[in-house]
Amino acid sequence: MSTEPFSAVEVIAIKRDKQVLTEPAINWFVDAYVRGVVAEEQMSAMAMAILLNGMSAPELSAWTQAYIDSGTTMDWSALGGPTADKHSTGGVGDKITLPLVCVAAACGLSVPQLSGRGLGHTGGTLDKLESIPGWRASLTESQMFEVLQTTGAVICAANETLAPADRRIYALRDVTATVESIPLICASIMSKKIAEGTGALVLDVKVGSGAFMKTVEQARELAQTMVATGKNAGVATRALLTAMDVPLGRSAGNALEVAESVEVLAGGGPSDVIELTLQLVQEMFEAAGVTPSKNPADSLTDGSAMDVWRKMISAQGGAVDAQLPSAKYNHIVTATRDGHLSKLDALAVGVASWRLGAGRARKEDAVQHGAGIQWHADLGDAVTAGTALFTLHTDDESRFAGALEVLENGYSIGSKDEIVDRLPLIIEKIK
Amino acid sequence: MSTEPFSAVEVIAIKRDKQVLTEPAINWFVDAYVRGVVAEEQMSAMAMAILLNGMSAPELSAWTQAYIDSGTTMDWSALGGPTADKHSTGGVGDKITLPLVCVAAACGLSVPQLSGRGLGHTGGTLDKLESIPGWRASLTESQMFEVLQTTGAVICAANETLAPADRRIYALRDVTATVESIPLICASIMSKKIAEGTGALVLDVKVGSGAFMKTVEQARELAQTMVATGKNAGVATRALLTAMDVPLGRSAGNALEVAESVEVLAGGGPSDVIELTLQLVQEMFEAAGVTPSKNPADSLTDGSAMDVWRKMISAQGGAVDAQLPSAKYNHIVTATRDGHLSKLDALAVGVASWRLGAGRARKEDAVQHGAGIQWHADLGDAVTAGTALFTLHTDDESRFAGALEVLENGYSIGSKDEIVDRLPLIIEKIK
Repeated sequence: MSTEPFSAVEVIAIKRDKQVLTEPAINWFVDAYVRGVVAEEQMSAMAMAILLNGMSAPELSAWTQAYIDSGTTMDWSALGGPTADKHSTGGVGDKITLPLVCVAAACGLSVPQLSGRGLGHTGGTLDKLESIPGWRASLTESQMFEVLQTTGAVICAANETLAPADRRIYALRDVTATVESIPLICASIMSKKIAEGTGALVLDVKVGSGAFMKTVEQARELAQTMVATGKNAGVATRALLTAMDVPLGRSAGNALEVAESVEVLAGGGPSDVIELTLQLVQEMFEAAGVTPSKNPADSLTDGSAMDVWRKMISAQGGAVDAQLPSAKYNHIVTATRDGHLSKLDALAVGVASWRLGAGRARKEDAVQHGAGIQWHADLGDAVTAGTALFTLHTDDESRFAGALEVLENGYSIGSKDEIVDRLPLIIEKIK
Repeated sequence: MSTEPFSAVEVIAIKRDKQVLTEPAINWFVDAYVRGVVAEEQMSAMAMAILLNGMSAPELSAWTQAYIDSGTTMDWSALGGPTADKHSTGGVGDKITLPLVCVAAACGLSVPQLSGRGLGHTGGTLDKLESIPGWRASLTESQMFEVLQTTGAVICAANETLAPADRRIYALRDVTATVESIPLICASIMSKKIAEGTGALVLDVKVGSGAFMKTVEQARELAQTMVATGKNAGVATRALLTAMDVPLGRSAGNALEVAESVEVLAGGGPSDVIELTLQLVQEMFEAAGVTPSKNPADSLTDGSAMDVWRKMISAQGGAVDAQLPSAKYNHIVTATRDGHLSKLDALAVGVASWRLGAGRARKEDAVQHGAGIQWHADLGDAVTAGTALFTLHTDDESRFAGALEVLENGYSIGSKDEIVDRLPLIIEKIK
């Protein structure tokens, strides 16, 4: 006889029938899955039922907590100061984490950031940093503590022991068409961020063609759900909905984005990257309930954010002054006529960059550190026939054709009147 | 690179998003599942998506056909005459198949019936027949043809090669809370009946506490879906919705039901069993488009249906004159007061019979041939204090307590005014 307190079939049937799962039922289901008592096919059916029937806020908090309870949690109280982190739902050219952790640390916050690798057309922070010769993503918890204490910020890979239920369920969702579920996305993100032990959390929920959420409504729902889940778990959480109809900055690709981030830390760089970094840092301070020790914008011009960068990268073995890898081949796309860059689609740029080798198609693939794409004009800018619009970079010449194919449909040159409307960089705040 | 024409994730996503699956996509998905290319967890997610989002009639016909195409089909054209079969969705005391095939054959139809074993509180036809000493459920196709040609009817187990996709998907549905899906139930039943090669098919869709479908609305939807699917496959299909709020006849259990069926074939037996048998036979003839060679009711009194029975059972090794097995123990429940049998719940009687050993809890369990329950009064009948209401039969005395516990709540003795309403035996016809 089974000594399990629940039956998997009965628990699945509750969600199937749009009834409310109790906290004990959720705890048991996730734990029994990790123990192998609930089978992969049962979790698959549950995931589809959750995707189609949704979850209430209490159900989702319990589901997220069950992920957290499946592993270990981190605790930064020994630092004796406020901690805050930021999470982006992923976009094209979204390198914000790199300057952001440095600015926040330069102004007095501790930023313990666990990041991931990219899959699909949006890059992963670890992939970007790994383009720095020598930089290591894996740290033990005590190494992580040491980097954080010394430099004020740390970016590293999540330990395998953090929310292992999520890791397994994510892999299952990937093959069962159950990725696109707001509660399951929320649980996946929030379980890792809550287990990470940050005191405050700012979510950057991207909206637009290059983002997972294509509409403001979808993004708002995800943001509200994640903010509520974070608060329920005692983390001061807020969110910004931000634009991802147009790519961020002027480059997408691993080393290319590191280089652009270093430009920003050196007081230059694209204005949208600077603006979004500073807005998100401000939200981090407000969420943490502390006042920055200086104006965050000043940290970019006085060298203090760059100091954090150099220490943080060096602490993880990165050769901070070494040349970044560059791709073997490049190809320049020039404007065929005078006019304005009237369209610049984030998805097309992201897919082009991915096809050039900046991203991976399967988890086990390697990325090309030098691959990617630079765009030399922003949406709406005047362009002249014969000037460079895009530079494509790859180690594998055969990749240009596929990248160009998607890129061709992603931009256009037109009159001033033909410039497509763009979303405001900061669309909405959700507290 | 994969040479598969579809991606499992994309096909699941179509159903998840309430779009229409094309016939090629369905054919591929089911075939790829059988080949092991679509994984168990992917079929589970698909099953839940089908359960929650439904299927259109063309989708369901394609899905059913894909089950059929996963195996072999049978062909009775060499018989040179009309074939017709009946399928019941399962009820308590539902032994109709036993007299029915004999009556239909005695009046000129050929009835090639593939039956199943029971799981849960409703019995299986093969379990019942296996209580006859020597009777064998397994026949090769040529043996089946021979019995059918010689006797006019054959009841045997479905070959493993018939709709093997259904067999695997059914097992998966059982553990993923996806049994209760009208399209999936329909595909499971109809694929086997269509592959069986019958020319006409009458469905007996049971309604009430003892049935899978608890309401007339649910049963009507299932019946309409099955009739449309059968017709699409070229089988002349119709359905009756019939009562299963009260158990059928006067006994539930394997040998007990065989004995009752033999009573009917001998011209006696409970009136509801006779009436339902004759109604279903009439529908079989109408569906087959042929006129019975005699009045079907006459075949019960002139011995011709009994002749079919004796030949058919003997042809499969059954000792037709041997004594049927009886249980080691019996227990009589008597009326505690005068009145009317004001309640007689099919589910309670079915579960009591199951608990006595007539049914199985798991596929691999054996049934007790002699176990079961007899009720000596029908709903509404006058009863006298001290007279027998029920006789319980089991080989395992310890089972009485559990059976009595559920039976106690399944009947009552009250005044004439307190007799619960019952469904008409034949509720509705669906063509």
